[in-house]
Amino acid sequence: MKIKPIIGIIGGQGRMGKWFVNFFRQRQFEVLISDINTKLSSVELARVCDVILISVPMEVFEEIVRKTAPFMRREAFLTDICSLKQKQVECMLQYAVCEVTGTHPLFGPAEESIKGRRVALCRGRGEKWFDWWKSLLSSEEALVFELSPQEHDFYMAWVQALNHFILVGIGKSLKEKQIDINKLRMVATPSFERQMEIVSRLVYQDPKLYSTIQMSNPYTLTVLDTFMDNLDRLFATIKMQDDQKFIDIFRQVQDYAGGLCD
Amino acid sequence: MKIKPIIGIIGGQGRMGKWFVNFFRQRQFEVLISDINTKLSSVELARVCDVILISVPMEVFEEIVRKTAPFMRREAFLTDICSLKQKQVECMLQYAVCEVTGTHPLFGPAEESIKGRRVALCRGRGEKWFDWWKSLLSSEEALVFELSPQEHDFYMAWVQALNHFILVGIGKSLKEKQIDINKLRMVATPSFERQMEIVSRLVYQDPKLYSTIQMSNPYTLTVLDTFMDNLDRLFATIKMQDDQKFIDIFRQVQDYAGGLCD
Repeated sequence: MKIKPIIGIIGGQGRMGKWFVNFFRQRQFEVLISDINTKLSSVELARVCDVILISVPMEVFEEIVRKTAPFMRREAFLTDICSLKQKQVECMLQYAVCEVTGTHPLFGPAEESIKGRRVALCRGRGEKWFDWWKSLLSSEEALVFELSPQEHDFYMAWVQALNHFILVGIGKSLKEKQIDINKLRMVATPSFERQMEIVSRLVYQDPKLYSTIQMSNPYTLTVLDTFMDNLDRLFATIKMQDDQKFIDIFRQVQDYAGGLCD
Repeated sequence: MKIKPIIGIIGGQGRMGKWFVNFFRQRQFEVLISDINTKLSSVELARVCDVILISVPMEVFEEIVRKTAPFMRREAFLTDICSLKQKQVECMLQYAVCEVTGTHPLFGPAEESIKGRRVALCRGRGEKWFDWWKSLLSSEEALVFELSPQEHDFYMAWVQALNHFILVGIGKSLKEKQIDINKLRMVATPSFERQMEIVSRLVYQDPKLYSTIQMSNPYTLTVLDTFMDNLDRLFATIKMQDDQKFIDIFRQVQDYAGGLCD
């Protein structure tokens, strides 16, 4: 590709949309945006751009794809940045005839640079644009990895749904008992200090996105079920003061977690 | 105190015991130790030392105190490093007539230096030795804080019992589902990456100590009950796809967690 493709960002006034507008403009791409109340409509973007990146709330994603993808040229490229990929890639494949890739940037709009940040790519259709997109991200030192939409959503049920579930549970419990957060922080172990750091990052997140991640990932309920079952059993072990059983479970976790220390 | 006190460490061959032996010796204190199979017994230490620091598993703590504390001189100083403080400080007060302080170093034996690490102190009896101990730790840049034995155990039910409960629950769930831990790490968000880091630290911990922290802290069950109730309600909200309720809870947690970001 000798001539730089024209980029169209649908939802370019949202937080992540703006982030990608800057990303492309800083790299001398021509970028057009559409959003609520922009001069250009998403259909106009679809007609003229070589690359369309959809950055809209997941609730309206299908509608936007249905409305705009049919206007894209066959030689164009459609991608998105939804936090889920199974239904989303399928939807893009259904309405677009051009090349399609699902993208999930595993970071939020607060990150200044893409360097060292993870980006998941799910192949949809075609090789040419996939390679272009992957090498653009990689050349900026993003940690790009490829997996199927199914695998993506499966892992995200652990990485996002379970993790957020726990963090919200901790925060809600502390709030309910009106624990003095500054005192608690003062008496923290290094481990709990880090846990509080992760909880505090929730402040920067979008509640609606977090709700959608919980409720729309097809694997969430299974993962949360597994976790709740394990907590129930662990709680019963503690209540029964079954020291040996607790130690046995703890050792199993140590064996498993050893794989993280390599 | 012009002449340096002689330090006796009961349990001086354990991991934390050794840590404190080094701590004192590096600071030119004379240190005597007792343990299983040492030349000196804990009673002999009690007779000759100015400061006795007890560093033994919590299960045998009371027995050790009962056996040794009565031999200490009235002008001596008794302290311990148990992870719980309510029963432990009471026990030392009961069997010793000298000054008593409860100490909880909020770090493990893997830490090289005490600098920047937290140490909880619970006053038992007397001012002189308390001040000596507090200023010794502070002069080495430990973050020393004072609270009552009751407050200590209450906060530790959150900081230790709840946190460990969650970490073990995560590890056990991942293990049960045989999740490829390296793949999972490769697809982690910054938040989940930190969560995995905390889980991995369990490898260095003592299973028996962690079991005792769960089962002997008088506040554990209440804290775990609160947490489980909140998770149950959150899980029900997700199952019912009650978007508005989830968002409402999420915002409450954001308000609370905002206090951590100041």
